[in-house]
Amino acid sequence: MALDRAGCLGLDLRDPLADHRRAFALPEGVVYLDGNSLGPLPAATAARLRQVVEREWGHGLIGSWSDAGWIDAARRVGAKIARLIGAAEDEVICADSTSVNLFKALAAALRLQHNAAPGCDVILSERGNFPTDLYIAQAITEVFGGRYRLLTVPGDEIAYHIDDGTAVVLLTHVDYRSGRMHDLADLTHRAHLAGALTVWDLSHSTGAVPVDLAGARADFAVGCGYKYLNGGPGAPAFVYAARRHLQAMQADRFAQPLAGWLGHRAPFDFAAEYEPADGIERFAAGTPPVIALAALECGVDTVLAAGVEPLRAKSVQLTQLFIDLVEQRCAGLGLELATPREAALRGSQVCYAREDAWPVMQALIARGVTGDYRSADGGAPGILRFGFAPLYVRFVDVWDAVEALREVLAGGAWDQPRFMARRAVT
Amino acid sequence: MALDRAGCLGLDLRDPLADHRRAFALPEGVVYLDGNSLGPLPAATAARLRQVVEREWGHGLIGSWSDAGWIDAARRVGAKIARLIGAAEDEVICADSTSVNLFKALAAALRLQHNAAPGCDVILSERGNFPTDLYIAQAITEVFGGRYRLLTVPGDEIAYHIDDGTAVVLLTHVDYRSGRMHDLADLTHRAHLAGALTVWDLSHSTGAVPVDLAGARADFAVGCGYKYLNGGPGAPAFVYAARRHLQAMQADRFAQPLAGWLGHRAPFDFAAEYEPADGIERFAAGTPPVIALAALECGVDTVLAAGVEPLRAKSVQLTQLFIDLVEQRCAGLGLELATPREAALRGSQVCYAREDAWPVMQALIARGVTGDYRSADGGAPGILRFGFAPLYVRFVDVWDAVEALREVLAGGAWDQPRFMARRAVT
Repeated sequence: MALDRAGCLGLDLRDPLADHRRAFALPEGVVYLDGNSLGPLPAATAARLRQVVEREWGHGLIGSWSDAGWIDAARRVGAKIARLIGAAEDEVICADSTSVNLFKALAAALRLQHNAAPGCDVILSERGNFPTDLYIAQAITEVFGGRYRLLTVPGDEIAYHIDDGTAVVLLTHVDYRSGRMHDLADLTHRAHLAGALTVWDLSHSTGAVPVDLAGARADFAVGCGYKYLNGGPGAPAFVYAARRHLQAMQADRFAQPLAGWLGHRAPFDFAAEYEPADGIERFAAGTPPVIALAALECGVDTVLAAGVEPLRAKSVQLTQLFIDLVEQRCAGLGLELATPREAALRGSQVCYAREDAWPVMQALIARGVTGDYRSADGGAPGILRFGFAPLYVRFVDVWDAVEALREVLAGGAWDQPRFMARRAVT
Repeated sequence: MALDRAGCLGLDLRDPLADHRRAFALPEGVVYLDGNSLGPLPAATAARLRQVVEREWGHGLIGSWSDAGWIDAARRVGAKIARLIGAAEDEVICADSTSVNLFKALAAALRLQHNAAPGCDVILSERGNFPTDLYIAQAITEVFGGRYRLLTVPGDEIAYHIDDGTAVVLLTHVDYRSGRMHDLADLTHRAHLAGALTVWDLSHSTGAVPVDLAGARADFAVGCGYKYLNGGPGAPAFVYAARRHLQAMQADRFAQPLAGWLGHRAPFDFAAEYEPADGIERFAAGTPPVIALAALECGVDTVLAAGVEPLRAKSVQLTQLFIDLVEQRCAGLGLELATPREAALRGSQVCYAREDAWPVMQALIARGVTGDYRSADGGAPGILRFGFAPLYVRFVDVWDAVEALREVLAGGAWDQPRFMARRAVT
């Protein structure tokens, strides 16, 4: 493979998704490879938010809860997300944050296991899972008074640890640090064979890789609105529960523990007793964040307009090109690939471990290539993380990013005081 | 008292808060008496949101977490709200919804009581409290495996039920239905004398009536951002914890159960073990909703600009005028005052019970007077609810609302099919 910059421009000319880049208000001169942390602003969002704020809130006031469809927004946007993750429209709702939804989903899954055999008491997760997933699991074990315990093992050993003692398998589909992707269907199947349930965190999958929750007979899932869904900083998250579990919760008359009023079957009856809604609305809690949901809907629409399968095809091309070009052009510059080389095993990001990854990334950002830095476990080198959101990242961006990386490393540009100072926030 | 419309216009001319109405983008021709449900759009919000969306998100992208202060927004807005409720700046943070914050605060309060004497197992609340408060309390009793039980009693009997068996008193300061205001300091004191802790829901107080949490030595509190704080539909809520309890949680090394990553002492270390932040940040959970927080901050600023004491003075005048005028002009029309006549015992709303309250309110809304309807317990007549947010409600609005009410009731305008159909959402 002897691709040059002109060849990359040629790939962009032939890219069937190229026009989708125009659906975003991207700043000039930035190669944005951090859409896996914060998706960029869709071109439609600003006008939609003006409409929500000035017309619906400003003019419609309280009446907009019904007249402008505010009360249905959490379900409406959830139904759109359902199409991206292979769920039925009535199995997904937008609400709260990923952390809070993890709490709901994990608590519901454990409650469904209350009558499992004694000794079925393990929440199995991955060492190095995104911290909030582990924190919520730790908190849940305390809330349930020591009835359950959290076991974390390396990602490639998960399958061997699923056994009779496993109550729930709690995994992130695509790892936030390495980009490694689990086989969701296989691990879900193994969990079911052992009598366990699954809670999948789809934060780094949704909108970037195909997910088929129905095909996998997955149990519960959560995900983030502000990464590949382009919903804006701190966008509402979503939660999925398989219809059979919603029915079981209804039949057994138990609720997820964040029993806020909008999860009630008839919130505007203002009844004294909590009676959860039949369906996925039982995973709602407080009053929905209307403005943020409107922004999220615009973001989800950008993904739906392209379709996940074409996005995945381009994503694989982009990440493969990046890996190949780094191999060709940055050889001997201390970069160690931290992402699976096999495309089927990775999401839409590519990471490299390197000494001094922090100042290297700062120097890259100063040159207009925005990726991000993630610290590593136990003193290992930090990670340079590059996300390739196929809706708006071009092949020529891949070329330019590799070129900037080569210049920074070969020229020692990162080894300057202004790049060495560690910021508090990444 | 023989006030007429001209007299009300005169009161507006002499109203020292009159200019604050210009801080809102209110629609023409609407008397908006529903700011206790959804505050109106502040004039500054639309431009601020454009800035956040187009400049900070669109142009600044991921860098805005630090460059635009996003990461500090939850604390910054919390510190502003602290000034409205008599709390220290480091005791309040904005996060999640009121329901979710109730869960955190109630769970923390109960956890602090874990070593209380056996038999100290009651969560004491008010019959008719806002449903989400009761639902969350019910859910908490289940989560904690039957260790606690919820006891609800009539509001005026709360004081008599605080005893050795009371673990936590969970009350809403101003009742959403009647507008009756509890004596926060007195009930907190009684709770402390009995060894109980308090969780106050300030949703219908904050921004409308003075609250002095420090003066009352209050323990925990939560409140809503979209009512008198004018933060927009589904705005983030806030949570308060007294510094002594934050210190005790730190000393005893326990966390509130929604242990999301942004409550960690160093979230960007991505550590495997949850270690809560020292301060009020331990009540944060997921990634903060940046756009919604910006809108909330604009709303909070409208209240800070006026000051709570002047607002309360005008609020008392407005509600008293409404009660007096209804008495004079709507006598014999079936309205039964459901709000305390004594100003010190009510918040910033006035309610009337009446047969067919639903179609009456619809007819009022059709005439440009927006209040709202709330159903009542056990078949009692529904409630006509009128909120008087002193930042923008004028004395002449009070006159016009009473006149519309008189016309609707005396003329039978409500008794028409178009007003009789019950909407699903109020």
